Amino acid sequence: MSEKTSNLTIEEKETFMQEAIKEAKKAEGIQEVPIGAVVVLDGKIIGRGHNLREDSQDATAHAEMFAIKQACQSLHNWRLERAQLFVTLEPCPMCSGAMLLSRVDEVYYGAKDPKGGTAGTLMNLLDDNRFNHVAYVESGILEKECGELLSNFFRLLREKKKLLKNQNKD
Amino acid sequence: MSEKTSNLTIEEKETFMQEAIKEAKKAEGIQEVPIGAVVVLDGKIIGRGHNLREDSQDATAHAEMFAIKQACQSLHNWRLERAQLFVTLEPCPMCSGAMLLSRVDEVYYGAKDPKGGTAGTLMNLLDDNRFNHVAYVESGILEKECGELLSNFFRLLREKKKLLKNQNKD
Repeated sequence: MSEKTSNLTIEEKETFMQEAIKEAKKAEGIQEVPIGAVVVLDGKIIGRGHNLREDSQDATAHAEMFAIKQACQSLHNWRLERAQLFVTLEPCPMCSGAMLLSRVDEVYYGAKDPKGGTAGTLMNLLDDNRFNHVAYVESGILEKECGELLSNFFRLLREKKKLLKNQNKD
Repeated sequence: MSEKTSNLTIEEKETFMQEAIKEAKKAEGIQEVPIGAVVVLDGKIIGRGHNLREDSQDATAHAEMFAIKQACQSLHNWRLERAQLFVTLEPCPMCSGAMLLSRVDEVYYGAKDPKGGTAGTLMNLLDDNRFNHVAYVESGILEKECGELLSNFFRLLREKKKLLKNQNKD
């Protein structure tokens, strides 16, 4: 288990998670699954991103990937040591892996992902000493808000599908 | 364990791994760690990529990511079902995760990665029923050639560093 600790106050964590939520809402606005992320260094956001899988038809177009890439660009450096990453949903294996590769120091997420989360739920790739990096992980930051964004999105999607099905019957 | 089987002959596997090796050599030519990948569908290469981490200063710039993105672009679809991915080195968590997300059917790699490989060595993310996709995995395709590319690259790098150190002493 990692012995790392958080360097942020609760207020800071919630402030940055609100920024990740803003990103998630950008995804929601274009009918993408609402997931957003930001990368923070020394109290400043250096990378932002939201899910664009359907819009781009790119399987790798996850919020965290955009945020990490933009942060690397900002610093002209692939190493994001000392950086914090905030994401509304627990990361998948790809995004957890990108966090290890970019060596982000701390990862904060909102809602857990029981189906594919690999930062504590199915496994914790970010706290496995066999890899060449370990990150501090904290879940449950604005968990309710992050989770409701997703559950509302999927509820509306189901209602739309049902409506469409009923219209086709008429 | 996955019950999937390979749909390719040994000749086909080696032909496509040679294409991944060509990509790895492009990386080597610009002093990047020589790793290359291709994505194949119905006998045609629809995505290619090589490691560009140092050149781009992007932590996510792995060979497999470029190959998967290009394949998605080729098909205008994030789903790469029925596709095969060839890569010279065993994939890391990020790239294994991208393979799960893009739903590639079969993954072939050359050399094992004892330090970070997640397609059989440290774990097998591609054959874990908890995720929503499982891929067929086969290792050891042109293993010697793929491995030597890497070991020669790192040997030359060590020699260069030694030379530089000795020059600085003079």
